[in-house]
Amino acid sequence: MDDSGPYTRRSALPWLVGASQMVGVASVVLTGVWMGHFRGGFAWDGSAQEFNLHPLCMVLGLVFLQGDAILVYRVFRNEAKRNVKLLHGIVHLLALIISIVGFVAVFDFHRSAKIPDMYSLHSWCGMATLLLFSLQWVMGLLFFLFPVASAWLRAAYLPVHVFGGVVLLVMAIGCSLLGITEKLLFSIMPTYSSFTSEGVLANVLGLLLVGFGVVMVYIITKEEFRRPPNPEEEALTVHFKTLTEGGAPPTP
Amino acid sequence: MDDSGPYTRRSALPWLVGASQMVGVASVVLTGVWMGHFRGGFAWDGSAQEFNLHPLCMVLGLVFLQGDAILVYRVFRNEAKRNVKLLHGIVHLLALIISIVGFVAVFDFHRSAKIPDMYSLHSWCGMATLLLFSLQWVMGLLFFLFPVASAWLRAAYLPVHVFGGVVLLVMAIGCSLLGITEKLLFSIMPTYSSFTSEGVLANVLGLLLVGFGVVMVYIITKEEFRRPPNPEEEALTVHFKTLTEGGAPPTP
Repeated sequence: MDDSGPYTRRSALPWLVGASQMVGVASVVLTGVWMGHFRGGFAWDGSAQEFNLHPLCMVLGLVFLQGDAILVYRVFRNEAKRNVKLLHGIVHLLALIISIVGFVAVFDFHRSAKIPDMYSLHSWCGMATLLLFSLQWVMGLLFFLFPVASAWLRAAYLPVHVFGGVVLLVMAIGCSLLGITEKLLFSIMPTYSSFTSEGVLANVLGLLLVGFGVVMVYIITKEEFRRPPNPEEEALTVHFKTLTEGGAPPTP
Repeated sequence: MDDSGPYTRRSALPWLVGASQMVGVASVVLTGVWMGHFRGGFAWDGSAQEFNLHPLCMVLGLVFLQGDAILVYRVFRNEAKRNVKLLHGIVHLLALIISIVGFVAVFDFHRSAKIPDMYSLHSWCGMATLLLFSLQWVMGLLFFLFPVASAWLRAAYLPVHVFGGVVLLVMAIGCSLLGITEKLLFSIMPTYSSFTSEGVLANVLGLLLVGFGVVMVYIITKEEFRRPPNPEEEALTVHFKTLTEGGAPPTP
């Protein structure tokens, strides 16, 4: 958002990034504690312990790492854009791989336990998010890392890519909250309303994920935190062109 | 977001607003059909029919009307800011009143049916959203309609108000999806996985709400759709000052 007040200073960035990382790591840890301590730990054998990998992978991959992949543009504001772009793509690839493992875990568990797939709102939203996230990653790779598209197309796609990234992060968080609610009602419906520790822990996890989303979107959309324009960046298109054409890139 | 591509034209605004209204109205209608047809209709007697008012009020008030209250700044871009500001406050007030009716409905039903309150993630997120929404409305009234705050404070609060508004709209949609999931698992858990019409209808409602959110946030944050700066607006502070001081406002 560009309506930044005149009283916010850029020095808030490190504190906000620190807060986002604390909340993000706490979310991943809490998911691990929930599945590890309350739900019997992890395995890869089609059992409920294999299902337990699903929440952990989704919170780690599709929420935390997806957020951090976007954040690299704000944290490394003054590094060479080429490196930041590569890091953005690599962290997103890691997020994608971990998310796919999380998806395989739940489908594999469903097959073993003879539970139908894809009937719930959580599954519909989650599948849409993962498919759009994969599409966004491939498009980003083609348009920006190996620019096969023309400058015109790249310029037209950039705002869609940026807006889509924020939407996907928020959707991933929304899907996580749906998953938390589903898991609690499937597992502890009779005791959930008596404020058992598992229910409270999972609710707190939900609030942490909302907090992670709010801080991340604030950092990402705040005008002062954006990368300053750099005339050198114009030359980078040519730089990457040499990569796609097989030539050696010049020394930066 | 200010990273608008050079190829998006402002003429897209009416189409996007039209799409948002179609999806928004469809969401309200679908909620009404779900509660009216599948869940036995509406009443105000502490029964399950009183609960049924809760989803309808929340989708109508906290989602659809909250979104439209924000949208007035984009739809009436060239009207006098005073009028647009008043309309923004009035539609938000309507949203607030309808949301409070929705909250009373569910607490009243819980009391009659002896169901505990405030234990689920949906209730935590929903309560946080309504409280923050009420706070935001009161702050907006004090800061912008009856400016008791200094120009310095108003300028500092404006970006928080704008960012907070978008966050609250997205939170309201997220809470609705949690509510849909809760309601389905409480009501039709044994048949949800066999793709019954009620389950599919509620899932489609969830997707429509996501679509409403995406289109709304796109319109709200797109730089070209913002209100153009207007030197006349400076004078409006004085104009409203006269309201708070009891003097008659000058004719616009």
